[in-house]
Amino acid sequence: MSLRLTRPQFRNFSTKFDKFELYGGRPIPANKQRLIPTSGSYPKGFNVGSTRAGIKPAGNVQPDLLIVASDTPASGAAVLTKNEFCAASVTVTRELMRRTNGARLRGVIANSGCANTLTGQAGLDDAIAMGRVAAKCISTGTADKGSSLMVMHTGAGAQRLPIDNVLHHIPKLAQSMGNTHDHWLEAAVALSTTDTYPKLISRTFSLPSAPQINFSLAGLTKGAGMVHPNMATTLGIICTDAPITPTALQILLRGAASKSYNCISIDGDTSTNDMVTMFANGAAASSSQPAVDVSPEPSADFVALQHVLSGFMSDMAKLVVRDAEGASKFITIRVRGSPSYDAAHHIASVIARSVLWKTGIYGLDPNWHGILAALGYSLLDTSFAGQGIIIPEQTSVSFMDGREAVKFLDRGVPVPVDEARIKQMMEKEDLETIVDLRYGTSQDITREEAVYWTCDMTHDFISMNSGVDFS
Amino acid sequence: MSLRLTRPQFRNFSTKFDKFELYGGRPIPANKQRLIPTSGSYPKGFNVGSTRAGIKPAGNVQPDLLIVASDTPASGAAVLTKNEFCAASVTVTRELMRRTNGARLRGVIANSGCANTLTGQAGLDDAIAMGRVAAKCISTGTADKGSSLMVMHTGAGAQRLPIDNVLHHIPKLAQSMGNTHDHWLEAAVALSTTDTYPKLISRTFSLPSAPQINFSLAGLTKGAGMVHPNMATTLGIICTDAPITPTALQILLRGAASKSYNCISIDGDTSTNDMVTMFANGAAASSSQPAVDVSPEPSADFVALQHVLSGFMSDMAKLVVRDAEGASKFITIRVRGSPSYDAAHHIASVIARSVLWKTGIYGLDPNWHGILAALGYSLLDTSFAGQGIIIPEQTSVSFMDGREAVKFLDRGVPVPVDEARIKQMMEKEDLETIVDLRYGTSQDITREEAVYWTCDMTHDFISMNSGVDFS
Repeated sequence: MSLRLTRPQFRNFSTKFDKFELYGGRPIPANKQRLIPTSGSYPKGFNVGSTRAGIKPAGNVQPDLLIVASDTPASGAAVLTKNEFCAASVTVTRELMRRTNGARLRGVIANSGCANTLTGQAGLDDAIAMGRVAAKCISTGTADKGSSLMVMHTGAGAQRLPIDNVLHHIPKLAQSMGNTHDHWLEAAVALSTTDTYPKLISRTFSLPSAPQINFSLAGLTKGAGMVHPNMATTLGIICTDAPITPTALQILLRGAASKSYNCISIDGDTSTNDMVTMFANGAAASSSQPAVDVSPEPSADFVALQHVLSGFMSDMAKLVVRDAEGASKFITIRVRGSPSYDAAHHIASVIARSVLWKTGIYGLDPNWHGILAALGYSLLDTSFAGQGIIIPEQTSVSFMDGREAVKFLDRGVPVPVDEARIKQMMEKEDLETIVDLRYGTSQDITREEAVYWTCDMTHDFISMNSGVDFS
Repeated sequence: MSLRLTRPQFRNFSTKFDKFELYGGRPIPANKQRLIPTSGSYPKGFNVGSTRAGIKPAGNVQPDLLIVASDTPASGAAVLTKNEFCAASVTVTRELMRRTNGARLRGVIANSGCANTLTGQAGLDDAIAMGRVAAKCISTGTADKGSSLMVMHTGAGAQRLPIDNVLHHIPKLAQSMGNTHDHWLEAAVALSTTDTYPKLISRTFSLPSAPQINFSLAGLTKGAGMVHPNMATTLGIICTDAPITPTALQILLRGAASKSYNCISIDGDTSTNDMVTMFANGAAASSSQPAVDVSPEPSADFVALQHVLSGFMSDMAKLVVRDAEGASKFITIRVRGSPSYDAAHHIASVIARSVLWKTGIYGLDPNWHGILAALGYSLLDTSFAGQGIIIPEQTSVSFMDGREAVKFLDRGVPVPVDEARIKQMMEKEDLETIVDLRYGTSQDITREEAVYWTCDMTHDFISMNSGVDFS
């Protein structure tokens, strides 16, 4: 495979990004500053803009309205929350996708500071107006039926958007558009709510059919910071200048989301506003370059892109977990030796939701008994129950200490451990635990692995979500 | 129906039970003292004993070994955890039930201080020995093949029972047996781990076929206090002197458990040791009284007992929630207007697991948006998905303030609320929220309701389960 991946923005890992020493009035935590890029490689033909439209409370200095748009009609795809009480943005975007099948879209307009949930028809009308007015404002003259922009909201629920403010600021938003690193970074700021740092990554890659071309991928996302009234929302916007058909793009996005955004858990609650979208405009392609497609069968480019996008979106999703509310640890859960990816993924998701385990981790206890307790009930009442997937006598549990595995349970038998070493390991910010099911006895069985990312459960989480302060 | 229910132990609601001002060295919280009975009506022909066998750490003054046994062979039933990493006690009891079908059992021996999980064959042998030696010790001469006692453990996991201590103390345990209130209360103490108060209730009832007879029910249970290493365990032991066949008893117990112990959530983790058992010896029946049976069809007595037992076990389960780790609120969740009990029960269980909602409650925020967010994702990936059970425009959410409902959402529309009144309501220890789905449009549809009990999520919960102290 002729993939070349570069991560220019991570060259300056240790560089402090002065602009963000203060973020929404708060200092950026020292261990987060390395996650803010100082440069990037952004896709051609996309422009982003952001402005303060007075959606966030007065006194907040951050921008709260942003637009990400392709100069030319692009393929668009979206993965939307299935929450029944979804925000107006989700309904509007779902309808847009139904109407267009993702063809000839321009991008997305998004706001922070207001989730526009439980606002009924009036809220829907606001979301539609926001998308239409912005689309008209950036229109290149082509007569559009309806909008060509998706809509995203995040923020406080059950309150109306200050729609007059929003519409009033859209021309200013359009004027602010550009394609520099600062434009992208400022948009990441505008997407934030209680995030402690802006979340932006970019990357270049090539495709087998055009190894000489450097395509770019850029992604904005937002963390699961608390949003009054206590709903955490994840949003993601991904752009590439590679050419991809709408159908292929939707399949690529859904597949990569299932291995990234669907593999993270902060607190186990699925938001009403969650949305990850992607746009591909082909602006970096030569005129003879065919669009990446899945029909009649997945091309080599499609397969290459699957790989690139899964890695890219995993990095985006991990940025979200690294900003989990009040968390002190970044935890990777690896479930292996499973008869299927889906069973491993489900087990990992249950462990990642175990409040007791995650609270133990906060106390620097690897709490491997807690992992086993969660493992032990993980498949109850699921379609995987009763298939002998979990067999205590086959199960091993370990943590990774650097490159070395520290075993706690080996095929059902507890292993004596070196307390001093465990203590040292648990003091690190990044932890990784491996649960090996060792399903089946035959050498021939293909055993699958799933990875999940989560965090610990802390006093600070409780303080942030209850408003009760202990410190 | 000729049911007469008396709750003699609650006559002295306000009486402080001096013996338990200190409990395991800690003072009993003032709001918990009223939950400790000062008298009771205990079933005939049952004797209980307890002793300190050195299972709990040295310095702990509480008894840690108990026995509850019928003088004569009794019907026995058990509901056992389905956790794959179950304790030795669960395996041993499951095997006992398989071998005997619940006929001619004597009762249960239980210990606190050691969960006997992950201890392999040696741990199984310990549990078997504990049951056999105790059964022999209380034997009335009938030659038993194997044990006639169930076994229960709770406490720290992944460590062996000090089995020599246990076996050595069994004769003393047998000698300690009796049927006074103090015997029962002391046994409830012995069943406790980090409970802040002992959990015991009793009640009298009559059956339609013998309205002149006062039968008794007594129940011991233990709270979901943290048990190192962070597994919460619920155990329950219920005895009655009514005559019930083993088959009927198992059906009664399972049915009542589904409406009581299966309707509580503290932290969402299912323990490796959970077990609720019941014994019926018929000692209060006249010689002509037939045993309550379900064959050829459920008798009037069976139906009456269903009602009694569900209420009784709900009270036991609520005692567990009232002692939830670090909790400051006792919350009732009522989901109504559902096409089925099972769907309502599932929705209630998901709301009861919402960490964000429960943390908001701790901050005295009714956080009804959090309820809707949880409701909105509650049926995803379940067999209830896609049936139109949750329709935002039909949904109402309210809290009960005394006997009056305070509406937050009325058929999908937010209702303005009186902040001062909400504040007053939220300061109460007991809260109740009602989610009305208003499924279907026809007047003829039977709509079902499910009730769940849970608590808030607090800084103290995090402190107890992490060992990190903030106060």
